[in-house]
Amino acid sequence: MRDLQDRKPDVAENLERVGITNLRTLVVTRWKGHEYRFVPTIELTIDLDRGRKGAHMSRLVESITEVIEAETGKKYSSFEELERKILKKLEQKHSHKKAEISMRTELVVERKTPATRKKTMECHDIFVKLVKNNGRFTKILRVDVVGNTACPHSMEHVGKPHIQRAVGTLELETAYENPAELEDMIKCVESSFSSKVYTILKTEDESAVVREMYKNPRFVEDVCRNMLNNAKRKFGNCRIRAKVVSQESIHRHDVVAEGWCDA
Amino acid sequence: MRDLQDRKPDVAENLERVGITNLRTLVVTRWKGHEYRFVPTIELTIDLDRGRKGAHMSRLVESITEVIEAETGKKYSSFEELERKILKKLEQKHSHKKAEISMRTELVVERKTPATRKKTMECHDIFVKLVKNNGRFTKILRVDVVGNTACPHSMEHVGKPHIQRAVGTLELETAYENPAELEDMIKCVESSFSSKVYTILKTEDESAVVREMYKNPRFVEDVCRNMLNNAKRKFGNCRIRAKVVSQESIHRHDVVAEGWCDA
Amino acid sequence: MRDLQDRKPDVAENLERVGITNLRTLVVTRWKGHEYRFVPTIELTIDLDRGRKGAHMSRLVESITEVIEAETGKKYSSFEELERKILKKLEQKHSHKKAEISMRTELVVERKTPATRKKTMECHDIFVKLVKNNGRFTKILRVDVVGNTACPHSMEHVGKPHIQRAVGTLELETAYENPAELEDMIKCVESSFSSKVYTILKTEDESAVVREMYKNPRFVEDVCRNMLNNAKRKFGNCRIRAKVVSQESIHRHDVVAEGWCDA
Amino acid sequence: MRDLQDRKPDVAENLERVGITNLRTLVVTRWKGHEYRFVPTIELTIDLDRGRKGAHMSRLVESITEVIEAETGKKYSSFEELERKILKKLEQKHSHKKAEISMRTELVVERKTPATRKKTMECHDIFVKLVKNNGRFTKILRVDVVGNTACPHSMEHVGKPHIQRAVGTLELETAYENPAELEDMIKCVESSFSSKVYTILKTEDESAVVREMYKNPRFVEDVCRNMLNNAKRKFGNCRIRAKVVSQESIHRHDVVAEGWCDA
Repeated sequence: MRDLQDRKPDVAENLERVGITNLRTLVVTRWKGHEYRFVPTIELTIDLDRGRKGAHMSRLVESITEVIEAETGKKYSSFEELERKILKKLEQKHSHKKAEISMRTELVVERKTPATRKKTMECHDIFVKLVKNNGRFTKILRVDVVGNTACPHSMEHVGKPHIQRAVGTLELETAYENPAELEDMIKCVESSFSSKVYTILKTEDESAVVREMYKNPRFVEDVCRNMLNNAKRKFGNCRIRAKVVSQESIHRHDVVAEGWCDA
Repeated sequence: MRDLQDRKPDVAENLERVGITNLRTLVVTRWKGHEYRFVPTIELTIDLDRGRKGAHMSRLVESITEVIEAETGKKYSSFEELERKILKKLEQKHSHKKAEISMRTELVVERKTPATRKKTMECHDIFVKLVKNNGRFTKILRVDVVGNTACPHSMEHVGKPHIQRAVGTLELETAYENPAELEDMIKCVESSFSSKVYTILKTEDESAVVREMYKNPRFVEDVCRNMLNNAKRKFGNCRIRAKVVSQESIHRHDVVAEGWCDA
Repeated sequence: MRDLQDRKPDVAENLERVGITNLRTLVVTRWKGHEYRFVPTIELTIDLDRGRKGAHMSRLVESITEVIEAETGKKYSSFEELERKILKKLEQKHSHKKAEISMRTELVVERKTPATRKKTMECHDIFVKLVKNNGRFTKILRVDVVGNTACPHSMEHVGKPHIQRAVGTLELETAYENPAELEDMIKCVESSFSSKVYTILKTEDESAVVREMYKNPRFVEDVCRNMLNNAKRKFGNCRIRAKVVSQESIHRHDVVAEGWCDA
Repeated sequence: MRDLQDRKPDVAENLERVGITNLRTLVVTRWKGHEYRFVPTIELTIDLDRGRKGAHMSRLVESITEVIEAETGKKYSSFEELERKILKKLEQKHSHKKAEISMRTELVVERKTPATRKKTMECHDIFVKLVKNNGRFTKILRVDVVGNTACPHSMEHVGKPHIQRAVGTLELETAYENPAELEDMIKCVESSFSSKVYTILKTEDESAVVREMYKNPRFVEDVCRNMLNNAKRKFGNCRIRAKVVSQESIHRHDVVAEGWCDA
């Protein structure tokens, strides 16, 4: 007898995304000669047509774990390369027309503080998704980067800005082959704020950051436009989405700006 | 001199959504003769063209607060009616082509327990969004409803299901005038699970719920299809989206099913 | 035969807190002549000695719902009064030595903006817990209030502060009879920051807030000490706890100060 | 002139905990011959007496980063060893009487599935805190482990249990030198539930897990007592705290049990 999953469901409706979500496991990648370990939160789904009751969920999990274990021999140079291996493995295990896999984790990158040039490590949330549709692979790369806004309106009216933390989210949707890198996306966002922020700041560094903020008063709208503009100049052949949320120091609510364009 | 917000920005990019978010305030509505008070979390945004540096954020806040205060005289019968008043008020205060407002809050509805017929109050997360584009109003209604899944696969193989809590999210996108109601959407989701859940359950009620779950083993995919099917039969002229996340009792990750269709 | 809950458990250990949590339902209170509706998140627990396998959970839920429904006739003037009624009801339903009930919700209070004196509604997270132990009722009142810090260190070194949103949490632990009010606790926190924040601010109001911040540069430590000091002068016969988290605009991490004292 | 932080504050109050929180950075440890990389969320605080206005926050950050960077040569065998190095470094940088450091991250451990004996990786949230007070080091170790409860009450009344995911939190407070290990704590929690859960389960494995759940119906109170009992037998000279939250499949709220004892 056929597996229960492969029989007809009571209700005939196509489903677009069926699978496992909020799965966390250990992933190792190799990038520019260094080994990186992550514990991403993973979602893997396939479409399911109206003739089949359910997906074989354990085969989806196995597609992830078998690829991750095979890694010991060969490391992957990016999340999307790892994700494509998983989708390729899934093709052997479970029929489907469309498949999607995403990983959410953090990336720690090195910076120098602005005045004393001390080394500092900066941590950013990242999200990498790969979609297989009609045999074509499209990826979505996303970074969330912390910065700040110094208000030009209050600068003009009082001669002094209110200042606050802001979070910029930059997303690219593009072909798998596009060599766009998360680290470059982070730089696009960092340079869009009134100033960059740092984990470690000695007194002279703090002074440098503060001077920078007062030199660059920016609305949340300005930061969002800078992000779009920086991304357009850096990346090609992609859909760009930018969003900034400014955690206003004069309100208990936030302000937001969002836009998108093609490059 | 023109307000800073109305001058030219350094970078010329159109923005799609500029405004305030995560604003919480007190809202009173009147519905079927009863007065309801809510403290929703509100987002209100407009588009901003490349020729203007920023939105006048305080006018967006005022559009909300002035409508809410004017309520004392006249109550609104639904969230979308209140939201339309706010967007109408905004038209007088701030030029724009497109505007969007959303409110996230909870709705408490009355039920009877299945065996002892005791009155019980059940609380659901809801989301109501209104989009004005080219003078047309479109609304998005969304409910998150808790239920459960009893696994038919394990029922078939061991004669016993594993069971778990699941959350069903049903969303309608439709014209402002569509009389679809949140309470009916909640019913569509509740009846899609292996069984309904209740805040209060005496022993006989608990037994009735448990029997119901064992009588209706359902995959997350079955629940999602039921939701689509129930919504199609109940509502007309809308886009329907259904999503179910089952918090598996045999795994530490979740399983998910998602689909959409037109009615 | 005795109910399963009342039989001996396999493992003999006293438990301190057994009950229901994350229950949301509709609550109506009357305070200073006005009716308020809330949908709090409720936790209700009792102790359970080593001789009994489990609590009768449905009796805990009924203690809440029966009191809330009886409200239609008579409203309660505070959350702690409502909570005491629930604990009194519980005494008739379930034996125990110790019982605890808490409610988390939000309180919306009216303010005037600093320059144009416009009416504005400000929303704060609150938490009210009542503990019955040896027949004595102790309550914990807590408010989370948003404000800001303008850094005095950078003010001294660069002549300009970095500024950011900060959240102050003030908690009182005291006898049930203490007339301390949540609204007064909110005022204690608001006046501890570099300046207060408002939901609506016209240009002159914004200027007033910005001037206030620059006049009152404060470390997170200063704000915490102000909170302790304000609370000591306002309230008597209580344990005071104060905590401030400042969402630094120059870092991607936060800074924190916490202290406690008796009044 | 003295640094601003070292001058007298306007308000004289001792503060118990002043420092940095929500800082994420890359940490490498070596444990049983393997290298592990983590991106923990870190909090580091000191006490501050009434005579000093503020802490030198950058010295707290440096205590973390200098120890982490020195790691390249020498790896630490546990989080608490790394934390003690950081507190030792802090002694050279900033005067204080009391200091606390905590790290929140996840631990991925290997298991075999119950029937097919496949290798599976299981991810758990962990928390390790070290407190230095009067020259003595005390540590708090905490694990959050996912499992399930099959209800014995409904088993008795209907012959069938309702089943749901549950989360067990086990915490030990003990001297720095206590050799208690996070992996053993995880085992104590796993074996307290109706059954263990696994990331990957083939059909026979799923059947084994389901049979196990039905063989071991347990209230949330039973699971909590098992955790206390398991921990008492495994660990010595410590304070044990256990808490279980069961995400009921028949309710939209949770049930909870909590207890503590000494070993």
